[in-house]
Amino acid sequence: MTSQPVLINGQWRTSTGTETFQAINPATRETLPEVFPVSPWSEVEEALVAAAAAFKIVRSFTGNRFADFLNAYAAEIELRIDDIVSAAHLETGYPVSPRLKDGEMVRTLDQLRQAANAARNCAWTVPTIDSATNIRSMLGPIGPVAVFGPNNFPLAFNSISGGDFAAAIAAGNPVIAKGHSAHPRTTQIFAEAAQHACETTGMPDGFVQLIYRTSHEDGAKLVSHPKLGASGYTGSRHAGLFLKEAADKSGTPIYLELSSINPVFILPGALEERLEEIVDEFTGSCLMGTGQFCTNPGLVVLPSGEKAEAFTTAVAEKFAAAPAGTLLGEGVERSLRAGIVAIQQTGAHVVTGNQPVDPSRCCHANTLLRATGKSFLENPTGHQAEAFGNASLMIVAESDEEMLAITEHLEGNLTGCIYSDTNGSDDVLYDQIAEELIQHVGRLLNDKMPTGVAVSPAMNHGGPYPATGHPGFTAVGIPASLRRFATLDCYDNVRENRLPPVLRNENPCEGLARDIDGKMTTGNVE
Amino acid sequence: MTSQPVLINGQWRTSTGTETFQAINPATRETLPEVFPVSPWSEVEEALVAAAAAFKIVRSFTGNRFADFLNAYAAEIELRIDDIVSAAHLETGYPVSPRLKDGEMVRTLDQLRQAANAARNCAWTVPTIDSATNIRSMLGPIGPVAVFGPNNFPLAFNSISGGDFAAAIAAGNPVIAKGHSAHPRTTQIFAEAAQHACETTGMPDGFVQLIYRTSHEDGAKLVSHPKLGASGYTGSRHAGLFLKEAADKSGTPIYLELSSINPVFILPGALEERLEEIVDEFTGSCLMGTGQFCTNPGLVVLPSGEKAEAFTTAVAEKFAAAPAGTLLGEGVERSLRAGIVAIQQTGAHVVTGNQPVDPSRCCHANTLLRATGKSFLENPTGHQAEAFGNASLMIVAESDEEMLAITEHLEGNLTGCIYSDTNGSDDVLYDQIAEELIQHVGRLLNDKMPTGVAVSPAMNHGGPYPATGHPGFTAVGIPASLRRFATLDCYDNVRENRLPPVLRNENPCEGLARDIDGKMTTGNVE
Repeated sequence: MTSQPVLINGQWRTSTGTETFQAINPATRETLPEVFPVSPWSEVEEALVAAAAAFKIVRSFTGNRFADFLNAYAAEIELRIDDIVSAAHLETGYPVSPRLKDGEMVRTLDQLRQAANAARNCAWTVPTIDSATNIRSMLGPIGPVAVFGPNNFPLAFNSISGGDFAAAIAAGNPVIAKGHSAHPRTTQIFAEAAQHACETTGMPDGFVQLIYRTSHEDGAKLVSHPKLGASGYTGSRHAGLFLKEAADKSGTPIYLELSSINPVFILPGALEERLEEIVDEFTGSCLMGTGQFCTNPGLVVLPSGEKAEAFTTAVAEKFAAAPAGTLLGEGVERSLRAGIVAIQQTGAHVVTGNQPVDPSRCCHANTLLRATGKSFLENPTGHQAEAFGNASLMIVAESDEEMLAITEHLEGNLTGCIYSDTNGSDDVLYDQIAEELIQHVGRLLNDKMPTGVAVSPAMNHGGPYPATGHPGFTAVGIPASLRRFATLDCYDNVRENRLPPVLRNENPCEGLARDIDGKMTTGNVE
Repeated sequence: MTSQPVLINGQWRTSTGTETFQAINPATRETLPEVFPVSPWSEVEEALVAAAAAFKIVRSFTGNRFADFLNAYAAEIELRIDDIVSAAHLETGYPVSPRLKDGEMVRTLDQLRQAANAARNCAWTVPTIDSATNIRSMLGPIGPVAVFGPNNFPLAFNSISGGDFAAAIAAGNPVIAKGHSAHPRTTQIFAEAAQHACETTGMPDGFVQLIYRTSHEDGAKLVSHPKLGASGYTGSRHAGLFLKEAADKSGTPIYLELSSINPVFILPGALEERLEEIVDEFTGSCLMGTGQFCTNPGLVVLPSGEKAEAFTTAVAEKFAAAPAGTLLGEGVERSLRAGIVAIQQTGAHVVTGNQPVDPSRCCHANTLLRATGKSFLENPTGHQAEAFGNASLMIVAESDEEMLAITEHLEGNLTGCIYSDTNGSDDVLYDQIAEELIQHVGRLLNDKMPTGVAVSPAMNHGGPYPATGHPGFTAVGIPASLRRFATLDCYDNVRENRLPPVLRNENPCEGLARDIDGKMTTGNVE
């Protein structure tokens, strides 16, 4: 059977690889018909050469060119929405509506268009001008970017349409997309639309390329190759750390989103004040998308007592009553079960769930585990094992001190939430926990579950290791996410006509604030 | 003999280490009298514990507290200028005046005071507020920072008074200074002043600490320790990469400044137009401080022909006529000689210099090497061996294409310079070389040598690997250098009274520009 073509250097062509793979439909466990190639190193290297050549050409483009491409691409996607969501439905088991068509697709288009605006208005370049010394600096494109997309957002974090892709392109970099093996057909349709948009907007061959799969070793060679500027990776910790080691050795930036259990602290007053409301929010957040969100609340800490028992009972009832959603695939199903076993081995017990539900599809019962604060503190690492999917662990703490000690032993996470009462009785404890918690998370929430990740300029979808590889960058939020794919470029005594437009005396972008002699201004250099 | 005390947790105390070392005076090769300890791991760990405790306390401080400390520290240093420059003179061989007293000391004080201003005005925190979603983010302190200072700037890059120190403190982080073994007494006096300033401004014990030396293994344990927020390292590539590997494995940011040969391209028209002027500038830049600057021009590329011969002759005469300066120590002397040998082995020949001059002090003749462009392209890595000190390599290229090919084969550098004529005859070649060169350097200069590194907000003292470990950050320039020692902290739906002051509705700092709903404004949230 002929395998599907790869997109290299502007051409859809047959892969030279001999290995192939097929996706499965997790809702039926059936193998899907299309056969996709595993690209050999020679093919990855061709993509690198083409991307480097494309970068030479696009380096002289202004932001408007990247904006035009991103907008054209969004319009191309709109023409193929039904194809894309149908393919993604088959490959992920996510419902077409509302999840794919009304949720992710809307977000995907919005991200691409926000990125287009960012490319056009140039604020991400942070132009800084010291007129007395005639030294001027800005962020500029870093070079070809490899994007490794995750399994859990086939559209909004897809390697060729998602947040990393949009950010890398808006910053002026060619992208080599390494599609996730769980949704190759979805990725392929996006790539067809992207290549078409490249042609209609005059982007060079090699500006956007797609391979579906490589060996781990070739992935490591890709992220550490001298022609590569940077990589973005979202996925499992194990595979991510393998790539990180190679990239780090070569001094090539790699931005990773690895794992996060997103602790939620419920303080005594809040539990007293609005138990039912919090039960509803927590259950909804845990089970949404079958728990397959990076920001899924996998750990909830609350004080022992009658209310903790009531919370346990109420959440357990809701977990048992809710249908067990379909998981993304057999790998996710296996690792969820293994994660639950790992947590159990630390002394946690299963309150509800943890059994097979329907062998005809990938799934597992909604699972609530419970352990004591003492148990957590005896083995903090064990209790923080990730069980990606519809499972969460409750920790019941005996005292405020124990809650605080738990906070101190948290690994790096994307988010951390604190629910406190509205009358001030939780305020002292809040301050203690919050001050510690912010050091372990990228985003601190009040009275709100972590699963909505707004594409806001103020968002941080990042956090300390091992949630990510560097706590100073975010994967979501425009323009901040573009800064990952940038170098700081400084021009010292460079003649004005040779400067990039945003550093010249006259401000080329309406409304662009530049730091001129220590003041932010939209004006010109005097 | 009793060894000098270390500064741990607010106390000057005897080290528990049994190994010791002494500095030498490179101008006489005499061993200096003071004996300094090598700290064992237990001592480093105590410093980590104290720094973590100090961080807990200072996290609630506003920027004004750090500014007060930095200003008080600068004032304390001013009281001891003569002690400091005398010690540095003995330990480095640099002249008291102008180098130490009128150069580095002035820069050091200016950096500390600029950092104080940055701590006070909070611009480095980049506050970003999305009022519709009530998501707010800013850069916040990353936690205790270990600073490893280099040998070549005993004051302005000293681990306890230099650029990394000032940046880490201004961003609100405790510092563990690992002094350079070549100038321990200089570092000790700074630390005495710093500790005094801590006391007068009410900073907690452990906010500023000093150890003089550790084993390489303990250095690696320090930069990868869970209590550490980040490290700053300036020094040799070999030792830096050893630390980088450990830090990378632990996911702890490390900012490195490793090595750079700072290529200078002289285009044909410039050589024709102002040969003598360029000879003077180049010679001055090469020999200043005995060539011991991170931005010393170690490689100059120019077109073959009569003018190249005239350039060679003129530079060689000046190199031969200038006294050979004293090098920083016997290690620098050895590695300079080894670097010259390595360059010779690639086929370069010595035009002048490369002999011992005065055995009574650390020094080596001013050395000019020369090779062809063809030779460079046959072994680019070999020709880019660093010979840190008063030696430079000329590459004579046969054609514009060869100059461009040389540019393409450059490793990452801090700087790259292009001299071009004023009449436009070099413009086509300039454009080709500049577009390539900016991808290999942090700072591109026109018609100017790279050795002045102004402390300007627009400066980039950084660049692609192996010049540094990440091309997005600068070690010089305030406030940009503070951003290395920061995490992105996001507050989602956090009650207003619980927000850090810069994220509250009312702008707490006069003149602080904040991004509110996509617009930079010094006003309040409406």
